[in-house]
Amino acid sequence: MNDIPTTTRQIVLASRPQGEPTAENFRLEDAPLADLQDGQVLVRTSLMSVDPYMRGRMNDVKSYVPPFQVDQPLTGHAVGTVIASRSDDLPVGTEVTHFNGWREHTVLDADDATRVDTEQVGQAPYLGVLGMPGLTAYAGLFHVGEFAEGDTVFVSGAAGAVGSLVGQMAKLAGAGRVVGSAGSPEKLERLRQLGFDAVINYKDGDLGGQLREAAPDGIDLYFDNVGGDHLEAALSRMNTHGRVVMCGAISQYNATEPPPAPRNLALAIGKCLTLRGFVVGAYDHVRAEFLQRVQPWLAHGQLDWDVTERTGLENAPDAFLELFSGGNTGKMVVRL
Amino acid sequence: MNDIPTTTRQIVLASRPQGEPTAENFRLEDAPLADLQDGQVLVRTSLMSVDPYMRGRMNDVKSYVPPFQVDQPLTGHAVGTVIASRSDDLPVGTEVTHFNGWREHTVLDADDATRVDTEQVGQAPYLGVLGMPGLTAYAGLFHVGEFAEGDTVFVSGAAGAVGSLVGQMAKLAGAGRVVGSAGSPEKLERLRQLGFDAVINYKDGDLGGQLREAAPDGIDLYFDNVGGDHLEAALSRMNTHGRVVMCGAISQYNATEPPPAPRNLALAIGKCLTLRGFVVGAYDHVRAEFLQRVQPWLAHGQLDWDVTERTGLENAPDAFLELFSGGNTGKMVVRL
Repeated sequence: MNDIPTTTRQIVLASRPQGEPTAENFRLEDAPLADLQDGQVLVRTSLMSVDPYMRGRMNDVKSYVPPFQVDQPLTGHAVGTVIASRSDDLPVGTEVTHFNGWREHTVLDADDATRVDTEQVGQAPYLGVLGMPGLTAYAGLFHVGEFAEGDTVFVSGAAGAVGSLVGQMAKLAGAGRVVGSAGSPEKLERLRQLGFDAVINYKDGDLGGQLREAAPDGIDLYFDNVGGDHLEAALSRMNTHGRVVMCGAISQYNATEPPPAPRNLALAIGKCLTLRGFVVGAYDHVRAEFLQRVQPWLAHGQLDWDVTERTGLENAPDAFLELFSGGNTGKMVVRL
Repeated sequence: MNDIPTTTRQIVLASRPQGEPTAENFRLEDAPLADLQDGQVLVRTSLMSVDPYMRGRMNDVKSYVPPFQVDQPLTGHAVGTVIASRSDDLPVGTEVTHFNGWREHTVLDADDATRVDTEQVGQAPYLGVLGMPGLTAYAGLFHVGEFAEGDTVFVSGAAGAVGSLVGQMAKLAGAGRVVGSAGSPEKLERLRQLGFDAVINYKDGDLGGQLREAAPDGIDLYFDNVGGDHLEAALSRMNTHGRVVMCGAISQYNATEPPPAPRNLALAIGKCLTLRGFVVGAYDHVRAEFLQRVQPWLAHGQLDWDVTERTGLENAPDAFLELFSGGNTGKMVVRL
């Protein structure tokens, strides 16, 4: 047991952010690791996810997931290797995913770890295209948004982990036209490579005018990762019986004032629109269908996915902050 | 043919309202009646409907119904009697409903008139509980809102033609609790008589606080006739997987500025809410089901309906304006 650590480095929530988070809201510290109990494993984490939804958990408000606690370690999806085991199911050397990210080592009940096969595709897809962002894109597009062949689909935050998959899945499933918005020329170029038919740089302003050009026949399905002005512009362009998938509102997560709302929401009446919010946790029941549909796309190279990787646990807070300044293309991960 | 008129009094749109409509936007005039062609009937209208949705048609904007034209007569649902006929289907004396209201006489193709039996229930129900407001309430609650037994239902504009039916239908179908909002003590008292479990006077302010008391376990289905602050307050009280039926936004019809929007709309994500707008025209296919379900409720005296009646075509504009100042309880009609 010589090589088995008894402490771990971890990042805790030092204080709750007011508005935009800063480095001071995080603290790197050493913490003891509990002794392994029967049925438990010790995992060394090698890759961890940072996600926009974590911002909501930093506030002390009731939501669909409980808030993080001050002075307690953050959590998140991660991939690692079992380095000590008192579980027959997960012997030493097994690769697993788990939700105790933001620390280098963690003790887990075997039930809280999921064995994964990283030989074929590596580790990162389990945090992205085969993980939560993939299921979010799939469930949102096909189940929440009731995608129909021929739909004109607009995706905001299209260069993000979820958005880039939504656009590609829509094309693969027979969308008439796919439009994406992002915030830099490099990202727009990448979206074109991924098969988006039209792209919009929201930093150029006049979202309404840009959308009118990009979707001259209107929008049937809007996959909203941004909220605010994006949602307002999309509502004005929605076709009758259109569907708005409310997945995220990254423009609002750091807001200290009530954010601007779509003042044209009443358009939903005459246009018979459906706006439907969702969290991926409510769609666990489509995970098998999702994998069955997505894995062949991956195997045939039809679905591409980007990873933006930072290195070192001490840099995880910065990687998280970058999510709000548009620093990532595709899935943001941190290699430990 | 001595008693057959050759002209009719009618009300035309004199000018498009800016914001709140006024009497000056309407003009009473005489107009010639065309000669009856084969297959046509001349109808003397005795009761006509005035409806909030007409406000939208007074603006020169594309919507789900075309705008009214200046100097042309307004239109609306009405009940009358065939007084001259060149149609075998509709002989003189037949009672019909039609959509050429806002005039005392009208020439119609027989296909544009629907024979009704007024012996049992009189004329008014065909403009209310058995007409468009009834179908709106029914389709909105059961089809758009996917009402489920045990739901806590909140209805705004609950003393209106649609709202009062929504609340009663919800109770008849097994709602756990029905809450209604209206703007006067007399209306609240009427809602209590109709079986609403809790009532809110929105003019007392603090809608959020009042709703918290009226629906302590949250809202499962919100039937929105008002928009604006009502919608915002309801979103904050919605339960997970709740449904918002967007039927009307009477608080906004006269707005000259973009109206206040629900700044908490992003709550729909974490709560997995569905907001769905609709117009009754999209639910013609449920009319037979609607009549089959509603007529027994009426026959057994389980469903009550109010009519606010004004008299004289010349008073129709005032009756319309009263819709926006809360002058009506139940269906507003004008007897000619």
